[in-house]
Amino acid sequence: MSNNEYTKINKKDIEFLVSIVGEDRVYVGENINEDFSHDELGGVSRMPEVMVEVLSTEEVSSIMTYAYENSIPVVARGSGTGLVGASVPIYGGIMINLTKMNRILELDEENLTLTLEPGVLLMEIGKFVEEHDLFYPPDPGEKSATIGGNINTNAGGMRAVKYGVTRDYVRGLTVVLPTGKVIEVGGKVVKNSSGYSIKDLICGSEGTLGIVTKAVLRLLPLPKKSISLLIPFPNLDMAINTVPKIIKSKSIPTAVEFMQREVILAAEEFLGKKFPDNSSDAYLLLTFDGNSKEDIEKDYEKVANICLEEGALDVYITDTDERKEAVWSARGAFLEAVKATTTEMDECDVVVPRNRVAEFVKYTDELQKEFNVRIRSFGHAGDGNLHVYVLRDELGQQQWDKKLKDVFECMYKKSVELNGQVSGEHGIGYAKKSYLFEQYGSEYMSLMKGIKLAFDPKNILNPGKVCQ
Amino acid sequence: MSNNEYTKINKKDIEFLVSIVGEDRVYVGENINEDFSHDELGGVSRMPEVMVEVLSTEEVSSIMTYAYENSIPVVARGSGTGLVGASVPIYGGIMINLTKMNRILELDEENLTLTLEPGVLLMEIGKFVEEHDLFYPPDPGEKSATIGGNINTNAGGMRAVKYGVTRDYVRGLTVVLPTGKVIEVGGKVVKNSSGYSIKDLICGSEGTLGIVTKAVLRLLPLPKKSISLLIPFPNLDMAINTVPKIIKSKSIPTAVEFMQREVILAAEEFLGKKFPDNSSDAYLLLTFDGNSKEDIEKDYEKVANICLEEGALDVYITDTDERKEAVWSARGAFLEAVKATTTEMDECDVVVPRNRVAEFVKYTDELQKEFNVRIRSFGHAGDGNLHVYVLRDELGQQQWDKKLKDVFECMYKKSVELNGQVSGEHGIGYAKKSYLFEQYGSEYMSLMKGIKLAFDPKNILNPGKVCQ
Repeated sequence: MSNNEYTKINKKDIEFLVSIVGEDRVYVGENINEDFSHDELGGVSRMPEVMVEVLSTEEVSSIMTYAYENSIPVVARGSGTGLVGASVPIYGGIMINLTKMNRILELDEENLTLTLEPGVLLMEIGKFVEEHDLFYPPDPGEKSATIGGNINTNAGGMRAVKYGVTRDYVRGLTVVLPTGKVIEVGGKVVKNSSGYSIKDLICGSEGTLGIVTKAVLRLLPLPKKSISLLIPFPNLDMAINTVPKIIKSKSIPTAVEFMQREVILAAEEFLGKKFPDNSSDAYLLLTFDGNSKEDIEKDYEKVANICLEEGALDVYITDTDERKEAVWSARGAFLEAVKATTTEMDECDVVVPRNRVAEFVKYTDELQKEFNVRIRSFGHAGDGNLHVYVLRDELGQQQWDKKLKDVFECMYKKSVELNGQVSGEHGIGYAKKSYLFEQYGSEYMSLMKGIKLAFDPKNILNPGKVCQ
Repeated sequence: MSNNEYTKINKKDIEFLVSIVGEDRVYVGENINEDFSHDELGGVSRMPEVMVEVLSTEEVSSIMTYAYENSIPVVARGSGTGLVGASVPIYGGIMINLTKMNRILELDEENLTLTLEPGVLLMEIGKFVEEHDLFYPPDPGEKSATIGGNINTNAGGMRAVKYGVTRDYVRGLTVVLPTGKVIEVGGKVVKNSSGYSIKDLICGSEGTLGIVTKAVLRLLPLPKKSISLLIPFPNLDMAINTVPKIIKSKSIPTAVEFMQREVILAAEEFLGKKFPDNSSDAYLLLTFDGNSKEDIEKDYEKVANICLEEGALDVYITDTDERKEAVWSARGAFLEAVKATTTEMDECDVVVPRNRVAEFVKYTDELQKEFNVRIRSFGHAGDGNLHVYVLRDELGQQQWDKKLKDVFECMYKKSVELNGQVSGEHGIGYAKKSYLFEQYGSEYMSLMKGIKLAFDPKNILNPGKVCQ
């Protein structure tokens, strides 16, 4: 369905929305904050025609039923911390704002599950469950994202090396379909082989197949001890090449991040706080967790020795809460810190097999020289997921557009060559569609389009994203 | 598409198949072993018109392309150890036998992945990776199943409590689509947010969406120690009611199975071997694993104490390989042992939240009395997945049909009441379709049908299964 086939919002529509949620939660025209027109980086913006704050599954269902009957495009949105434009209403229409559906509904300690609404923030989940000695392992850098957003991008984060990604911790969902009908998928059950896994389709579908209004998450017992190692290397190549050797040693760290001096300096500047060390060119930051000191000691000693054998300059053990906070808060600020050093930037979130990370990063170094543009990267060396930022600095619009396009094409081509994928955790949204089409080809994309059609025959839920 | 719209196999079709794989691997009419008309329990049988042994993705693709062009139904099959008729060619046509595609292709220790063909048996995977100190956690009872079958049912097994199910260990797949086109989904990458997760749709789709011809599995380091506890209780209720308390204690065993005296006696009879103890009415069998004795000692001591507080009669520690083998081989033989005590049986594989297991088992006891029929159950107390067998014994056909239907309806109704699902790990196939329809309703089922249509517009791949 092309843009001009969608019905424009009229007075009757607004009246309907007010009849469902009341006047206070319907925003029109200038009353909508400009923030709702874009996310953090997606390179696309458009205001919704109307923005509605919802409080229940029933409200979402009523609005969706109406929108379906009247062919009005709808976009659901959480905190808007996405990076690929997935929550931008590129055809206008209704924006359903889920941030006020933010209640934690139930902690079930016999089934180790947490039931909650989609607007709960990631940082709140961690805090809540840890008070009960429980653990929600997914740990994306952006802690002010909503769990709804995390589910819809299948967010990964730092601890994927050991614990996996968001999908692995979603047991059940309540979903409002594009038609307005409500289905429950999964539940508190640990196993499920009851038909096609709609739950796993919704995870990572970026708001295009349904609107998640409730989720049942799987929890683990909280590991009682954790320790981080900050390990300086003479250069990035040596640092990253050590990672496959760590994995091969059969010690599985909780997290393995890599970082370069420039990025650390930017974070120090951005936070106004010193990093424990910034004298080396490259670092690995590792975490180990377990139930006792002895439990993790053997593992991290083995890994520390591997790193030293591979040329590490030192091993800093970070075992106090204060020191851990200093290191990991810097890591958490990298994206914003890099952003603050330039006028504009775009990012590539490829994932490659973890023994190909070094090769990819080396290639981005070459591109930096070849295209004479600043490129900064950091990311998850332990799971192969890179975050590579191309910085505009003082480039003119045309020059920037061209350079960005060329550099991105090179990077995604390289990723395919290394058996990688377009996105490790940020998704496809609007910004990365062409690269997905390029990699998967028409047969694969037409499957996705067919799935979209099965869910959304009128193509009104977040149209123009992922596979369209 | 109804039965009579499918093209019947003719001489030209046979000639085509021979041209692709050679005469030796094409079986027609009486040359097809009767075994290929049924699985282990699905209650349905029909011979394929032709059975073809394949050796490569290219062969499968050629056959599928031809079948698609000529509207011939196709069913793929591995070891045929299924229990719900998923691999039975209910519309005849071509059976693609994948058991000779049984090569392990690559062990990648830097990425902790195993690449293999779909016909590799589960028992071979365990043996192969353990020789390299690695571990493939999914552990379904039927070790002679193929990995292709395990992927297609999203098989669970004993260790799901701690390690999850097959889906959690599938990183990438090569899939021949119903059209004959070949796609690669996922790969060796640890994270992936690149469009709808086709990989997770194929897992658990019971051969209806595509034919898996290669898989990349995720491995873990092999835990160095494991120990089993066999814990007798005065009755089953007490045994099962202890499980949520174990989970709540934040000790996560690798496996928690429950078993009753009658089933143990049947296994002793069937195997001609004694179980370590058969004097009590009910047992829990638990395993703990970890990297050192000390590592797991604290956990199993805590759990042993919880069991004793809850009324366990004793705790037998099983830490030699020999004793473990005796206990677990008995557990592995339960299905066949129960089958050997009766003339015919059918099974219910529901999964409920793990704190509702006791309630469900109690209910099946009531049904046993109410319907005057023998019911035996065992299963995965730790993950809520039950295997409940209704035994025909000396019942006449009509009486059996009626009783089975009534008992099954009661059980699935109870499962819904307890927020359970129709199948924990055996799938829906042909035998459980009506219960899936009953539970999910038309909106949910039409989504599944829409997905099937997106993959298979002519409905030729394993028609009449899961959602049809």
